[in-house]
Amino acid sequence: MPSTYKIFRDPVHNVITFDLKRDKLLLDLVNTATFQRLRNIRQLGFSWVAYPGAEHSRFTHALGACHLAGRVLDQLGKSTPIDPADRVAAQASALLHDVGHGPFSHLYESAFPSALSHEAWGIEIVTNPASDVHQVLAAHDPALPGRVAAVLAKTYRPYFVVQLVSSQLDVDRFDYLLRDSQMTGAQYGLFDVEWIINSLVLANVEIDGVRERSLVIDAGRGLHSVEQHLLGRHFMYRQVYFHPACRAADMITKAVFKRLAAVAHPPEIPTALAAAARGDTPPLADYLELDDFLLLNLFKTWAKSAEDAVLRDLCRRLTQRKLFWALDWSGFGAADRERLFAGLRAGVARAGFDPESYALVDLAADTPYRDVMSFAMRGKPSEEIWVMTDGQLRRLSEVSDVLRSLSNRAVAQVYVCFPPEARDDVAAELHALGFPDTGMKRA
Amino acid sequence: MPSTYKIFRDPVHNVITFDLKRDKLLLDLVNTATFQRLRNIRQLGFSWVAYPGAEHSRFTHALGACHLAGRVLDQLGKSTPIDPADRVAAQASALLHDVGHGPFSHLYESAFPSALSHEAWGIEIVTNPASDVHQVLAAHDPALPGRVAAVLAKTYRPYFVVQLVSSQLDVDRFDYLLRDSQMTGAQYGLFDVEWIINSLVLANVEIDGVRERSLVIDAGRGLHSVEQHLLGRHFMYRQVYFHPACRAADMITKAVFKRLAAVAHPPEIPTALAAAARGDTPPLADYLELDDFLLLNLFKTWAKSAEDAVLRDLCRRLTQRKLFWALDWSGFGAADRERLFAGLRAGVARAGFDPESYALVDLAADTPYRDVMSFAMRGKPSEEIWVMTDGQLRRLSEVSDVLRSLSNRAVAQVYVCFPPEARDDVAAELHALGFPDTGMKRA
Amino acid sequence: MPSTYKIFRDPVHNVITFDLKRDKLLLDLVNTATFQRLRNIRQLGFSWVAYPGAEHSRFTHALGACHLAGRVLDQLGKSTPIDPADRVAAQASALLHDVGHGPFSHLYESAFPSALSHEAWGIEIVTNPASDVHQVLAAHDPALPGRVAAVLAKTYRPYFVVQLVSSQLDVDRFDYLLRDSQMTGAQYGLFDVEWIINSLVLANVEIDGVRERSLVIDAGRGLHSVEQHLLGRHFMYRQVYFHPACRAADMITKAVFKRLAAVAHPPEIPTALAAAARGDTPPLADYLELDDFLLLNLFKTWAKSAEDAVLRDLCRRLTQRKLFWALDWSGFGAADRERLFAGLRAGVARAGFDPESYALVDLAADTPYRDVMSFAMRGKPSEEIWVMTDGQLRRLSEVSDVLRSLSNRAVAQVYVCFPPEARDDVAAELHALGFPDTGMKRA
Amino acid sequence: MPSTYKIFRDPVHNVITFDLKRDKLLLDLVNTATFQRLRNIRQLGFSWVAYPGAEHSRFTHALGACHLAGRVLDQLGKSTPIDPADRVAAQASALLHDVGHGPFSHLYESAFPSALSHEAWGIEIVTNPASDVHQVLAAHDPALPGRVAAVLAKTYRPYFVVQLVSSQLDVDRFDYLLRDSQMTGAQYGLFDVEWIINSLVLANVEIDGVRERSLVIDAGRGLHSVEQHLLGRHFMYRQVYFHPACRAADMITKAVFKRLAAVAHPPEIPTALAAAARGDTPPLADYLELDDFLLLNLFKTWAKSAEDAVLRDLCRRLTQRKLFWALDWSGFGAADRERLFAGLRAGVARAGFDPESYALVDLAADTPYRDVMSFAMRGKPSEEIWVMTDGQLRRLSEVSDVLRSLSNRAVAQVYVCFPPEARDDVAAELHALGFPDTGMKRA
Repeated sequence: MPSTYKIFRDPVHNVITFDLKRDKLLLDLVNTATFQRLRNIRQLGFSWVAYPGAEHSRFTHALGACHLAGRVLDQLGKSTPIDPADRVAAQASALLHDVGHGPFSHLYESAFPSALSHEAWGIEIVTNPASDVHQVLAAHDPALPGRVAAVLAKTYRPYFVVQLVSSQLDVDRFDYLLRDSQMTGAQYGLFDVEWIINSLVLANVEIDGVRERSLVIDAGRGLHSVEQHLLGRHFMYRQVYFHPACRAADMITKAVFKRLAAVAHPPEIPTALAAAARGDTPPLADYLELDDFLLLNLFKTWAKSAEDAVLRDLCRRLTQRKLFWALDWSGFGAADRERLFAGLRAGVARAGFDPESYALVDLAADTPYRDVMSFAMRGKPSEEIWVMTDGQLRRLSEVSDVLRSLSNRAVAQVYVCFPPEARDDVAAELHALGFPDTGMKRA
Repeated sequence: MPSTYKIFRDPVHNVITFDLKRDKLLLDLVNTATFQRLRNIRQLGFSWVAYPGAEHSRFTHALGACHLAGRVLDQLGKSTPIDPADRVAAQASALLHDVGHGPFSHLYESAFPSALSHEAWGIEIVTNPASDVHQVLAAHDPALPGRVAAVLAKTYRPYFVVQLVSSQLDVDRFDYLLRDSQMTGAQYGLFDVEWIINSLVLANVEIDGVRERSLVIDAGRGLHSVEQHLLGRHFMYRQVYFHPACRAADMITKAVFKRLAAVAHPPEIPTALAAAARGDTPPLADYLELDDFLLLNLFKTWAKSAEDAVLRDLCRRLTQRKLFWALDWSGFGAADRERLFAGLRAGVARAGFDPESYALVDLAADTPYRDVMSFAMRGKPSEEIWVMTDGQLRRLSEVSDVLRSLSNRAVAQVYVCFPPEARDDVAAELHALGFPDTGMKRA
Repeated sequence: MPSTYKIFRDPVHNVITFDLKRDKLLLDLVNTATFQRLRNIRQLGFSWVAYPGAEHSRFTHALGACHLAGRVLDQLGKSTPIDPADRVAAQASALLHDVGHGPFSHLYESAFPSALSHEAWGIEIVTNPASDVHQVLAAHDPALPGRVAAVLAKTYRPYFVVQLVSSQLDVDRFDYLLRDSQMTGAQYGLFDVEWIINSLVLANVEIDGVRERSLVIDAGRGLHSVEQHLLGRHFMYRQVYFHPACRAADMITKAVFKRLAAVAHPPEIPTALAAAARGDTPPLADYLELDDFLLLNLFKTWAKSAEDAVLRDLCRRLTQRKLFWALDWSGFGAADRERLFAGLRAGVARAGFDPESYALVDLAADTPYRDVMSFAMRGKPSEEIWVMTDGQLRRLSEVSDVLRSLSNRAVAQVYVCFPPEARDDVAAELHALGFPDTGMKRA
Repeated sequence: MPSTYKIFRDPVHNVITFDLKRDKLLLDLVNTATFQRLRNIRQLGFSWVAYPGAEHSRFTHALGACHLAGRVLDQLGKSTPIDPADRVAAQASALLHDVGHGPFSHLYESAFPSALSHEAWGIEIVTNPASDVHQVLAAHDPALPGRVAAVLAKTYRPYFVVQLVSSQLDVDRFDYLLRDSQMTGAQYGLFDVEWIINSLVLANVEIDGVRERSLVIDAGRGLHSVEQHLLGRHFMYRQVYFHPACRAADMITKAVFKRLAAVAHPPEIPTALAAAARGDTPPLADYLELDDFLLLNLFKTWAKSAEDAVLRDLCRRLTQRKLFWALDWSGFGAADRERLFAGLRAGVARAGFDPESYALVDLAADTPYRDVMSFAMRGKPSEEIWVMTDGQLRRLSEVSDVLRSLSNRAVAQVYVCFPPEARDDVAAELHALGFPDTGMKRA
């Protein structure tokens, strides 16, 4: 009795089932070399330096997001018929939403200011005729590459397909909060996903002047689960994604990339990385060569044999986990920052290090929840969450006390880091500038 | 090889271990008839009408709270020596903190305005020489009954023992949130208890003008877990503890009690209930006869054979789960309430029912978090949570954005309920009074 | 937006969904007084004396079994169309499979030799025109009561419907193992239910000379999960269901029932219990009056005021949890048993107790797995589990090493119990008969 | 308030705590480059080809095993004082038990017949004065390297320290079953670790003629948990560790290694791998350069540019997950094997492939439980599990029906694999040899 479906076992969802016929497209996409590459890109970049269990890749996350997209569509379908073409576009987009990520995930695109975003690379992967992903999509339906690209670019209609894949209440977040909470062991992001899925409905909402068929929460049912979900994400940012040791590893890696751009040109540098270091956009095929494990190996090589002493030293510290000291300067006023950073650079220089590579600053920020004002200010299409309460559509921030207090409030983190050897010199400089000693307390 | 400890398996904590020697007192307390009675009092009163799994008793909850008290004391002991007498008082009090509950838990004490609180009954059980619990405590140490009573009365010193058992961050809440979340299946109250325990320390805090050795959260470690815990409790209130069907069952039960007080005197009425109905306080032994299962059985008897037709009808509806309609009127302004309630009574009367027993109003409220202002206003000792951040003690509400927004804000629920047969008449009355039809939407 | 389904939250399955239209019958059945009565019958009888968390009722178990029946049918439907009438019969039967249970579940039917089994009461409930359950079924389809009765009597065809509800691999076991494991906290019975459901298919199997459409395990997929499931059940029997303290409580309760039959006739005895004590079968309506809580209350009453001293004493021990000593005599050879039991009775009598009520013997047995030989010997229709391996149907015991060793081997437990006060006298009698002292070791 | 301990969050154990003082040695070991290297060696080699979540490394497993060793020692210490030196040796050895693993874990040592085992490399790492691990151990206590090496070599006394780290009931298995079950999502290996830990005691057992202080299970408590644990391991072997896709990836990787030894000498080959290919043992420092990610990168490189066409093709198939077909030939008799393998080679050759690299055979075996006879036959010190029952020590296989049936029975798996392109030719050869077509059914 040959099986009619393919099952993936999964630590988060247990059983992820694809029907061999109905979901053939999805399975073919999974089997492309481009998608398989996600096995080599970790979901949380360098978070394993602080959370050893954070070794999971974007591969399993993408499978999980695609699975959840299917479950949400099944739920929506109970009350409203879903166009099969929308279903295909939604699930393929959920599967592919991270396919454009570079090594160490978000770190890569933020390290090279001129680099394409992972979303842009994702659209390239979907639309470039040379890409195996494009070929699989086009073989299924010549219009499909364009449709998936539209979802990724957020121009697809009906709008709920975009929301399902990328919004403040999407399957991407559903999966990553559950997965990251479980894998790191820091359980802040666990929430009742069954109950949220259960309370999703479709309704017509006026968004930017147009009525769009949108995902809406039935408040009587799901309001508190959504609050729990958004707060869980907030806690994960504060405690995991902003963890100082992870930020320190990120900062050193960026310093490595910067050094490659400025000075060092080791012969082993991959073509795509050399292009990025020059500010160029590499061809897709070259870009796809890059992944976490290739770069971690290169760092090991350079730690031993790079000609440039700074590159060698940075790579040594990174690969032997001799991380810089990270200090949390979020508590200082914005007005003091430039003086603080100058003091940092002076101290690091006094200790004999090049501040360019050794006095590092990281500004991270997350806004737990954005509502319409925020989007208006940013000139972006509105993405707030709508809830249905007593037969009326209202904005989540109108209905939820808990979230109103967090709406549009960016949680900013200012971390600096430098070699432990420079500690006394940095402290002396700060002291000279009149800052309290608590500034030297390790995060 | 005779075992040296007694183990209880537990759905929440898996293994609860008592050392046969060190914890002999606790085991002796568990074996008293008075403590075993807690098996017959459900943790969540009538919540099983909405959450079928909520069949768990206060017995397992009390074991769990005692177990957690031991774990917190072990953790505190890592950094500060704990006086063995404090440990004994703390664990015995955690075990006994609910021993004074009447049938259906909180419902009972709120049904009879003149009834003693469960805390007062608890102190009576601990101090009354005729009580088996008193005898076990006194046999261990003649001073112990007084010490446990002091913990329950919140006068014990050092103060952290009181906090451990009853505060806004106590083992009672730790256990009930985990247990109620698991048993109801509504998982809002799950939180990372390991991490909170882990971040508890002792510090001297000035409380009401006196420096007290207090439980304090190490903010760098546990702030977000505490936020998650307090929000989880908030969500459980909104979604589970305030569930309209449970409130309806509560209201009908109160109407039964009121009817017993006013009119009906069925011969099977237990002595203690008759006393309560008269406004008297029954002797302890009589009080302890009462439990959920005795009353549920009586309700079944009265449903069939009570002479008083109202009592018979109320009991029939309760035991056959033909509950009243519950409407959520929380959205109406306080100014309108008296007129609304008058309309309700008029409608119910017009439908042929006695408003006294059939037009029921329930005002429930919870304050997710109270800080010092709130306590000051209520003239009670301050019970806010203190956190240690950067070596300084600060109030939780100063440090936490999320909780500040909820601090001292009572979440009030106004439910009314009445027989479904009175629906049209109540609607007509409300309409006549000019209220919108949405007032008739079922909660 | 009125909801189109009813959801129960559940500690085991999280979300149990019934469609308001498609599953109206099931919801109507849940709302009958007869089904609601299951809230008052605990799944594990007296197991709470050893496992405090075992307070869950047959109500939640029946909901869970019905939910799993729906899930299995959905799975089977992926490869084979399921006749809607079979689906209705299967889910209704899964919901009702325990509706005939008496107080303390299995204990009741074993306490009165002439009592109807719970299966027979179940069929009565389904077919008796005065029963609310019958009326709901018949209102849906006049043929349905007969069809459900056929499932409960195992004569329904196609046969897989019977298997789904009652076999060695049925939704009853699926649910109770998961639920009992979670509630007791003894996790032996946890197994990968997702994976088993996933590996179920339908195939034609020759059973007792007739080809029947049967539930079959796809071995390549599910063999090990089924082994894990059956072993989990075996472990639960050994560790939980046969726990000596639970058996002791059962034995005392049976002694109470026997005393009611023989001697004591307290005025409060419920009609149905009096009938059972006389060896009569009470009318259905009387039988349905009985439940755990009614009897536990009566035991409390009789502990205080029964005229018969033995009844009073037994009830006192039971309700104050002063259980008898239980000894495990499974290790003695069958040949010695009668002499051992005689010694026990003599010792108990010497200590001044009536052996009829105080020298109690309990023979419990379970066969972890039965295969065809066993069924043949018992003259029952064959119920072994079939697996599909390499396109061939084979018996599970042919394929599984692990289970072959356990097949048809009854695990027997011989417990005796008596009052602790009789200990020395029983020991002396055993000593006089030449039995080793280990016989007196408490189980 | 500076923290006095270091905590790792962990997906399996939640909180793993090391005291900064008492456990300084362990933390120093964790921080060595040699131990950090375990982050780059996956626990389950290539299992991620079938179980995408199996991306976890030996780093987290080693932390988990060390944590469990501490918990078992705490438990044992409740009844018997533990010598602090034994505790140190036990925990350090648990942490280091896998530190000698090569890339892809067990695969590496089985690929090169002359290679040292990972245990031998572990002893080298502990005793080689140039090793950072050795230096940390020796700095703590000059005798410690020798003591840890003795534990790894199983000569340490008291014997329970060896058992704790490596036996049929050790913390290695405890951790890997829980971790692999969780990460793969195949939950067969979950078992009640709390309960097993709880039932461990120390007792004197005669092992090989000498009385040794040994780990023993208190049968009354833990027998069924141990059965569950050993069966869980058995199921994991059958379903996960022997999964055909994983074996196929293993076989191709071994073919790559063989090709490196025989023919191909790509310039990028790491020194240690070249030495292994020659049959030499590389110096420790070279060996430690090797890890999963280095080799996976090399395979990618060779897939594109290796001069040797066979190496290029094998690497291409491996890195693009175009795995060979795997057939399960375990069902054929041992007598037929050589003829079958010859047919396989002939078919592969006929299809134009070199059988040396393309007709691959894998013989895997596991014995679920070994008892004394088995050890006697193998001439190894006895390692069976002892249980204490009724005050007597007995062998587990005497006491457990379930395990007796599995004792000393090797479960053998015979897999063969070859390129899908050779399918028809292999089938034709088998047909010509008279074997049934089922031989061609994919595993």
